Amino acid sequence: MPEPLFEYLLRLGDDRLVLGHRLSEWCGHAPILEEDIALANIALDLIGQATLLLGRAGTIEGEGRDADALAYFRDAIDYRNALLVELPRGDFAVTIVRQLFFSVFALLQAEALQRSGDADISGIAAKAVKELRYHVRHSADWVLKLGGGTAESHERAQRAVDDLWRYTGEFFLADDVDRAVAASGTGVDPSTLEGQWQTHVRDVLTRASLTIPETPYMQRGGRHGRHTEHLGHLLAEMQSVARSHPGASW
Amino acid sequence: MPEPLFEYLLRLGDDRLVLGHRLSEWCGHAPILEEDIALANIALDLIGQATLLLGRAGTIEGEGRDADALAYFRDAIDYRNALLVELPRGDFAVTIVRQLFFSVFALLQAEALQRSGDADISGIAAKAVKELRYHVRHSADWVLKLGGGTAESHERAQRAVDDLWRYTGEFFLADDVDRAVAASGTGVDPSTLEGQWQTHVRDVLTRASLTIPETPYMQRGGRHGRHTEHLGHLLAEMQSVARSHPGASW
Repeated sequence: MPEPLFEYLLRLGDDRLVLGHRLSEWCGHAPILEEDIALANIALDLIGQATLLLGRAGTIEGEGRDADALAYFRDAIDYRNALLVELPRGDFAVTIVRQLFFSVFALLQAEALQRSGDADISGIAAKAVKELRYHVRHSADWVLKLGGGTAESHERAQRAVDDLWRYTGEFFLADDVDRAVAASGTGVDPSTLEGQWQTHVRDVLTRASLTIPETPYMQRGGRHGRHTEHLGHLLAEMQSVARSHPGASW
Repeated sequence: MPEPLFEYLLRLGDDRLVLGHRLSEWCGHAPILEEDIALANIALDLIGQATLLLGRAGTIEGEGRDADALAYFRDAIDYRNALLVELPRGDFAVTIVRQLFFSVFALLQAEALQRSGDADISGIAAKAVKELRYHVRHSADWVLKLGGGTAESHERAQRAVDDLWRYTGEFFLADDVDRAVAASGTGVDPSTLEGQWQTHVRDVLTRASLTIPETPYMQRGGRHGRHTEHLGHLLAEMQSVARSHPGASW
């Protein structure tokens, strides 16, 4: 088994790196200048968090890869993000509903990680909590607006919930990696966060008149490197410049 | 002649909107995570400044277009940015050299506009000065690194200077619009900024061992709506979502 804390930090970092990249695809494409700026700010927060988390992961490894090496020179099979964050950006409703699902999870995670016995991780978490509180508020406000807006905005938001709900279960799957870092007091067992997540997310969806679909089973695989084809495309794009000129500045 | 202050604010706003969009094309493509974040932050500052400037422009117009309407529902011929900012993003050296040329100009402009008799404009300028000081420092640091780096980085930086220099003269061309807003104490005649700009930019280039090319003539046209084909492509992309669903949130 790989070093559990390294593996655990990859999961945290990759979630944020991949979602930050997906969000940044809205740069210059949002239909409202203010929203363009808001989404880009959220993307920046996530990429910043990822940089810190992957940087901390790199210090655990013997090989001494830094955050850039981990971001740009791993293939999809070595990425540990949940599948939800790698799905295409979709329309604005998909982007916002995903953002609600992820932000609530990430906030609960960061709140708990503030008590990590690892001083680097608790410090990263304390900074992230402030950012993630805003992300939760921003996405919840938009979900309420879309759900209670026009017939079309409601329908699109409902479709986004229907399509994305089955990817949320993966957040809370705990394996030996999670249990090891929880036992050592450095990490958090994600299965302990599910109750609060359900309460918070269901409350927002109910107020937005959106319903949760029947889901026969939840998607999984990302935490162990089994990804959708979408991650490969995303990484090809994200890594192209760094890989074509290793060590250079373009 | 159109209302000079409206026209003047479009020039200021469009420079920042178009360059902010060009910079945001690096989102997720920079070869270093930190640089990805830095460029995206600069892009956000510029789009934020553009939003304020176009918002102020909209209040002058009878038709009452807001910043979004001005950004998303004008065609290239109605854009008033300098040609420099619409050129393709190029490699990292092109991006950085352009950023130096523009940031120094924009900073001088904003410093002078802090004394505008229009309280909105002086307020926008005061906020922008703080942001632009960082943009100047960031781009100058990088120009020094590239110029004094490897043979390849120096060569690319020199090529960028050679290619872009002929677009810098347009910054300082003054016409009746500029003279009218300068006379009314609301705007600044850009020709008065050229001396300081030359001093600052030449100092950085010299320290970076980069030379300024012989330029038989300077490119111009953007301030009067005569743009390169690149602006049309950029706007098509930037405006596609807003135009395909006017009034909606995707």
